[in-house]
Amino acid sequence: MSKLVNKPYDTLQEGDSATFEKTLTERELVLFAAVSGDVNPVHLDAEFAKTSMFGERIAHGMWSGSLISAALATTLPGPGTIYLGQDLSFRRPVKLNDTLTVSLTVKEKQDAKKIVIVDCLVTNQNSEKVVTGTAKVIAPTEKVELDAPQLPEIKIG
Amino acid sequence: MSKLVNKPYDTLQEGDSATFEKTLTERELVLFAAVSGDVNPVHLDAEFAKTSMFGERIAHGMWSGSLISAALATTLPGPGTIYLGQDLSFRRPVKLNDTLTVSLTVKEKQDAKKIVIVDCLVTNQNSEKVVTGTAKVIAPTEKVELDAPQLPEIKIG
Repeated sequence: MSKLVNKPYDTLQEGDSATFEKTLTERELVLFAAVSGDVNPVHLDAEFAKTSMFGERIAHGMWSGSLISAALATTLPGPGTIYLGQDLSFRRPVKLNDTLTVSLTVKEKQDAKKIVIVDCLVTNQNSEKVVTGTAKVIAPTEKVELDAPQLPEIKIG
Repeated sequence: MSKLVNKPYDTLQEGDSATFEKTLTERELVLFAAVSGDVNPVHLDAEFAKTSMFGERIAHGMWSGSLISAALATTLPGPGTIYLGQDLSFRRPVKLNDTLTVSLTVKEKQDAKKIVIVDCLVTNQNSEKVVTGTAKVIAPTEKVELDAPQLPEIKIG
């Protein structure tokens, strides 16, 4: 069982960074369509996607956003973080078998409310920028180490 | 089979609006954890969540973001929309069986690049603001009417 460990506000320093990685497979396309309700065929239908401007199936843009939120919640600051806001700039499509890396960097600490501004960069396996943005969170005040719950099996099709 | 119908740039007017609705169930909690990689127990483990500041399981904040992206992609402007950017302000937790309504309103058209700025408001069944934000998209230029693909069956557990 993997551990989720946070970095409380007092231990964070400007410039601290963390990364989080995930690969796009057909599974992510189907699950994101189901959980969001965005059933556009450009994400789901290979034949249709051939006729689109991208020429093949692409990820839902907000899937990359969900990876940023996962990175914040599991790595930096990690468990106990309260998500206040996020801006996202979608720069490049994500295609099947692309591996995305979310890089988070602490940009600013605002002591009054334990708010932390985090730079967010998502790149693909060719180091191309896919998404850029900035997150605003309240960092946890206490150290936490948790067992990550085991997800139930998910069968598709 | 349901239809996805878009509203091309030339037909859009400031003030045009659309809504999109989805209810949070255990299914969304598990699928969003799987697709994003955010396996925090506050979303997944009822016993753990009782000890959290929220007192019960809550949705991943970015799940509400995914509903906004689904609303843009399926209703206004709909199929063919290119997502350029999004800002999100998370205002209130979302709990099991909450029904969220995404309300989109065309705020501004920028003719040079067919860019449309869309106000995004997500409310719960008590009309409380859950998420507010603004989307920046390129609207499609041509009318499209598509059959929404049927998702494969997804079995959990």
